[in-house]
Amino acid sequence: MVNTMAKQRTSIDRFYSIIPAGGIGSRLWPLSRADAPKFLHDLAGSGSTLLRGTWDRLEPLAGAERIMVVTGRAHRAAVEAQLPDLTDLNVVLESEPRESSAAIGLAAAILERREPGVIIGSFAADHVISDQRGFRRAVVEAAAAADAGYIVAIGITPTEPAIGFGYIRTGDDLEIPGAPNALIADAFVEKPDLATATGYLSDGNYLWNGGMFISRADVLLKQLGVAEPGLLAGLLELAEAWDTPARGAAVDRIWPALKKIAIDYTVAEPAALAGKLVVIPGDFDWDDVGDFAAIAKLHTGGHKSDLAILGENARVLADASTGVVISQTGRLISLIGVTDIVVVDTPDALLVTTSANAQRVKAVVDALKLSGRTDVL
Amino acid sequence: MVNTMAKQRTSIDRFYSIIPAGGIGSRLWPLSRADAPKFLHDLAGSGSTLLRGTWDRLEPLAGAERIMVVTGRAHRAAVEAQLPDLTDLNVVLESEPRESSAAIGLAAAILERREPGVIIGSFAADHVISDQRGFRRAVVEAAAAADAGYIVAIGITPTEPAIGFGYIRTGDDLEIPGAPNALIADAFVEKPDLATATGYLSDGNYLWNGGMFISRADVLLKQLGVAEPGLLAGLLELAEAWDTPARGAAVDRIWPALKKIAIDYTVAEPAALAGKLVVIPGDFDWDDVGDFAAIAKLHTGGHKSDLAILGENARVLADASTGVVISQTGRLISLIGVTDIVVVDTPDALLVTTSANAQRVKAVVDALKLSGRTDVL
Repeated sequence: MVNTMAKQRTSIDRFYSIIPAGGIGSRLWPLSRADAPKFLHDLAGSGSTLLRGTWDRLEPLAGAERIMVVTGRAHRAAVEAQLPDLTDLNVVLESEPRESSAAIGLAAAILERREPGVIIGSFAADHVISDQRGFRRAVVEAAAAADAGYIVAIGITPTEPAIGFGYIRTGDDLEIPGAPNALIADAFVEKPDLATATGYLSDGNYLWNGGMFISRADVLLKQLGVAEPGLLAGLLELAEAWDTPARGAAVDRIWPALKKIAIDYTVAEPAALAGKLVVIPGDFDWDDVGDFAAIAKLHTGGHKSDLAILGENARVLADASTGVVISQTGRLISLIGVTDIVVVDTPDALLVTTSANAQRVKAVVDALKLSGRTDVL
Repeated sequence: MVNTMAKQRTSIDRFYSIIPAGGIGSRLWPLSRADAPKFLHDLAGSGSTLLRGTWDRLEPLAGAERIMVVTGRAHRAAVEAQLPDLTDLNVVLESEPRESSAAIGLAAAILERREPGVIIGSFAADHVISDQRGFRRAVVEAAAAADAGYIVAIGITPTEPAIGFGYIRTGDDLEIPGAPNALIADAFVEKPDLATATGYLSDGNYLWNGGMFISRADVLLKQLGVAEPGLLAGLLELAEAWDTPARGAAVDRIWPALKKIAIDYTVAEPAALAGKLVVIPGDFDWDDVGDFAAIAKLHTGGHKSDLAILGENARVLADASTGVVISQTGRLISLIGVTDIVVVDTPDALLVTTSANAQRVKAVVDALKLSGRTDVL
């Protein structure tokens, strides 16, 4: 008993959080932009940006000095303004975006060099969780399972047949000290249609893929190297130069050539196929706030008859209207008889759509890119 | 035959157009404002403001010097910018709005003093007519009937069971030289419900009340005096002082005390009850562009599947959306999957509603007044 507790404490003491803060959040245009990505907005209405909320959730796990943020050079100032405790040691600046395998892999490689045997967890900068204790309980279990050599995902117990999330199919119980709820993860499944999602919910063996992966850094890198040996070699070379005067030259030479690929494909799915992926079921609330429908739901508690209003200086006059208004301008916004509406009012662009069409916002962004109207992206 | 033609020419030669340019157009907020009323907007998409369009329609009847504009002092500069041919002789500036009986009555009284026996026609500054010849044919007939001593309304042949307009019930044919289509007007009826309007259309004896009244100035003033002797006395006193140095003092003393009442109640309806109202059916198109649904219809030709876009610098990116967008800001406006939508984008206020709710816009304006948010009115 004493041994188990000691081991558990040891796992989390060697724990490091990685926050990849990269995605723009195209489905949240015109709120999210290249220069004001999703993680820099207070979409939860908590008074904090999503990035700050993520930091505050992770900081109690192992301290501020054990959080590493991976972000673009362009966002450095904004990120530092949000996270005053961030030091140069704890930030990885990308010269250009190269997807999650490169971002998380580089952080893992740097940390493993500095502190061999470190356990890392990666947590998106733009998700919302309100049950902090439930989240941390799951991470502590995950760290224990990671210490046993597994790649560990935290899966979210579904509360509805969501079609906007991926799912993890769970298998047998595992007996891992300090991780009593650990299950083998059988497979990852992509975003399903409604009928399939409804089936998953009644089946009971499916969890939402919250995109949270915990593992020993060396285990993650080894798994990544199986799928992408060239990418691993580049990351190791970068990590070797990182804390030396050679960093700048190495970044300029290596980073732009790294393969752009999501970590789901290089680590999580291969590990699941190899029987090396474990899932810890999380009973806490979780949302990736992926589109305006998610924002509307988050702020109305799912009450279809409500109108959610976001924006510090929002002035809204609504009559018989439901949905969500996001105001960045302070202009008077008047709604009359529009239901399930989404209005996003920014200084140079206005979006009017409905929750039902929220996923189509990305297509508008693509159309703007194609037509060269990048001034509003 | 020669006599009839001579008489007809005489009627229109003594003809004077009056354009009351006063109403703000609350149902078109936030486009129409106290300082930018409806008549100063190009709602027809013709490249001209509604006021200028009205002027251009009337000018061929009897010349620019025989058009009198009644407007508020606050709009003087904007009106003069629209109508460079307007002289001081031909404008009546209201120190404050006092409704159509006072506005049209004062113009009539001034003109009657200057030129006894003048025939006047009053035409709203903010209506849309594209068939100029059809309009003028009706006015020429109306002037002939007016010369015979009648108050004459131009009624519009309905093309649909509109519920946004008043109707005139027509009676027997009259034999008036130069006005072969003249009918007795039996009654005015207020805006009906859809079932009633459908009945009017199949009945065939109902015309839309286009708010165009033609009469001898002395006949109009006499009729007005029956209903409102105090108002008439004030108007005659003002007219007596008008072309003298006493005008300013007379306006300050008399104008603010005049009764505010629509000319429908003081002249048109009493004349109809007394059998002295004649109607000339107009076969031309006509619209009072009373709300955003009317604007949408005007610009889409009534095609429900179209999206109308108004605004010189409008930038609209629409996907599966119908209705109308009015842009005054040049911001990018993106619509996704919203149908029958009305979006009005102005620098300090945004309206999002639907055509079906267009009549409710006035209630928002009333709510803004009540709550003291007059900065956006």
